Amino acid sequence: MRVLVLGGDGYLGWPTALHFSARGHEVAALDNFSRRRYHLELGSDSLTPIRTLHERLKAWREVSGRSVEAYIGDIADYAFIERVIREFQPQALIHYGEQPSAPYSMIDRDHAVFTQSNNVTGTLNVLFAMRDFAPNCHLIKLGTMGEYGTPNIDIEEGFIEISHNGRSDVMPFPKQPGSLYHLSKVHDSHNIHFACRVWGLRATDLNQGVVYGIHTEETAHDERLLTRFDYDECFGTALNRFCVQAVIDQPLTVYGRGGQTRGYLNIRDTLQCVDLTAQNPPAAGEFRVFNQFTEQFTVLQLAETVARAGVELGLRVEIEPIEDPRVEAEEHYYNAKHTRLLDLGLQPHFLSEELVESMLSTIVRYKERIVPERILPRIQWRRPVEAEPSVPTRVD
Amino acid sequence: MRVLVLGGDGYLGWPTALHFSARGHEVAALDNFSRRRYHLELGSDSLTPIRTLHERLKAWREVSGRSVEAYIGDIADYAFIERVIREFQPQALIHYGEQPSAPYSMIDRDHAVFTQSNNVTGTLNVLFAMRDFAPNCHLIKLGTMGEYGTPNIDIEEGFIEISHNGRSDVMPFPKQPGSLYHLSKVHDSHNIHFACRVWGLRATDLNQGVVYGIHTEETAHDERLLTRFDYDECFGTALNRFCVQAVIDQPLTVYGRGGQTRGYLNIRDTLQCVDLTAQNPPAAGEFRVFNQFTEQFTVLQLAETVARAGVELGLRVEIEPIEDPRVEAEEHYYNAKHTRLLDLGLQPHFLSEELVESMLSTIVRYKERIVPERILPRIQWRRPVEAEPSVPTRVD
Repeated sequence: MRVLVLGGDGYLGWPTALHFSARGHEVAALDNFSRRRYHLELGSDSLTPIRTLHERLKAWREVSGRSVEAYIGDIADYAFIERVIREFQPQALIHYGEQPSAPYSMIDRDHAVFTQSNNVTGTLNVLFAMRDFAPNCHLIKLGTMGEYGTPNIDIEEGFIEISHNGRSDVMPFPKQPGSLYHLSKVHDSHNIHFACRVWGLRATDLNQGVVYGIHTEETAHDERLLTRFDYDECFGTALNRFCVQAVIDQPLTVYGRGGQTRGYLNIRDTLQCVDLTAQNPPAAGEFRVFNQFTEQFTVLQLAETVARAGVELGLRVEIEPIEDPRVEAEEHYYNAKHTRLLDLGLQPHFLSEELVESMLSTIVRYKERIVPERILPRIQWRRPVEAEPSVPTRVD
Repeated sequence: MRVLVLGGDGYLGWPTALHFSARGHEVAALDNFSRRRYHLELGSDSLTPIRTLHERLKAWREVSGRSVEAYIGDIADYAFIERVIREFQPQALIHYGEQPSAPYSMIDRDHAVFTQSNNVTGTLNVLFAMRDFAPNCHLIKLGTMGEYGTPNIDIEEGFIEISHNGRSDVMPFPKQPGSLYHLSKVHDSHNIHFACRVWGLRATDLNQGVVYGIHTEETAHDERLLTRFDYDECFGTALNRFCVQAVIDQPLTVYGRGGQTRGYLNIRDTLQCVDLTAQNPPAAGEFRVFNQFTEQFTVLQLAETVARAGVELGLRVEIEPIEDPRVEAEEHYYNAKHTRLLDLGLQPHFLSEELVESMLSTIVRYKERIVPERILPRIQWRRPVEAEPSVPTRVD
């Protein structure tokens, strides 16, 4: 299968490219290095020392004997993505190519508008290029569980049957996301659904939970193949951030009461899910949604798991609630369905203290690279009270 | 009340500005003349000979003794809209400032991306400028009934109570719009809802039906105050287009079976609705949705009404079904609620043969200005079969 990975230099995109390459598929990785640029802007960095894309690809050739093609450019540039799709003729297009951070989108107006126009335009460009040059290609789009928000009813996988005044219909599940980034994904979902209905494209929207973990089967072969690992305010996810805090003796900062419940999954399961999705494409015209996570936790439960694992390793770990910088329910009902990927054969790697201990050990190894002042939240969801903007771009 | 009208040079924006000015409010009209530019691009024009904004404003001063301020610029330019909002300090901001045509958005990729980024960015800019410089201002945003699509259940006003697995919640009504333009409005609705939830802004989303009619109380005073009247493929709405076809002896072209049902309203009722909304603002943090139309018709019913009125005036009127250029249900269930504006006091002007006859008489008066080759649809929703793009921008 010819597999094109958008965002192929990123946290999940890079391991995804290797995963498919290792299994004999013809793989191309497309990236504009935006994640590396955001870190240059914000003064943060990956915990793991990652190589340039060229060095990574060379290392992969040495380790595996296989080649992954690189396309360097921006999918917001239509001429570029059109050329790539005409040339590479992907059969599966795995789309991680978006600005993926909620706090980054909430920095200020510039970052908000950039996030929405970048993500929406890039995805529209992909849809038009597919329509005209690869209409049978399967679009596998990374969405997010955050699109749903935290409704008071069970969250279904993309669609819900609604009975109303004696009639009924299966309709898109209503979306109430919690940031301007999450909203950009909601916009994408609506646009992709339309492209399937009107142009007969085929797409799977993977509404992914929060991913944790460092190593995958392929990246563990060689240090040059490591994927990035973010723990900063903008790009770090909760569990990854707590692990880094535990290692540098910073209290695990839980936002508010810590009752925020979300779906989580191991990075290895992301690869399994994307693989199962690619192996089982939808029909032409079908827009399919899978909820991609394996377990639900509250933020406080995660912090407690990290604390227990840390104590096993002799770390001194405290949990400290801080004021929630976001506007969100700090305690709420949450029950999201996630059976469709299990039905396709997903074998989950559940979160265990052993896994957290192994993450902690890897973090200890790269401890010197940590930038501690980029962990605590400075970006506020609420309207700024003073006139001063809350942009964290000054160098300090 | 200080009222800022975005798109104040347009079909509805201009009469809205006059309506509020006539009632003693302090009014500013903002426009970037994009509608006039789209017509220059496409080779179409308003049926009515409209004056420049400067001439219109001068005529209004002469006729009424009142002044309306003009702000010329683009709300996609944040520095511009921020300055306007800081300076004018609107208490109600009536937002018609978007690319409003479904066919225009479906011309090709460029027009699709332009429509979504223009509309979404402009509205985000308005939200940020309100948040920082006019947080108590009431945003009155023109949405469209087209956001809902044609579900098999009754359409509620913005929100629906959903019971599911023994629990229930009031949630945003699911959206399944029929064009990339309509999708831009869905994106806006989600963004505005978020701004109310997170920043405490107050907004009313007016999901408007299809507007028909030429004259309003104010524009009827003087020919220099006329509003524009579009009948072309892109910007003409169904009833307006049928009336023009009747006058020039072109068959009334009904798309497909003509069972497409939509909500309709008279332009005078648009002004009433916007006025009632402005007089009754929501609470801080409230996102309110009104469905703004007064009657439902199928396209075929409209054509038949025009045909009957035409015969009264001695016109020879035929109805001719043509292949539907859109992808849509040509017959479907449709029952949309629209009680909230009636509850506020809306007194509808229903569609009558007399009204259509009066529209036909006005059109006869400007008959020489009609561009007949811009009425029939050339823009296709479906994937083009041949390589040739379907862009109707060549000059012929």
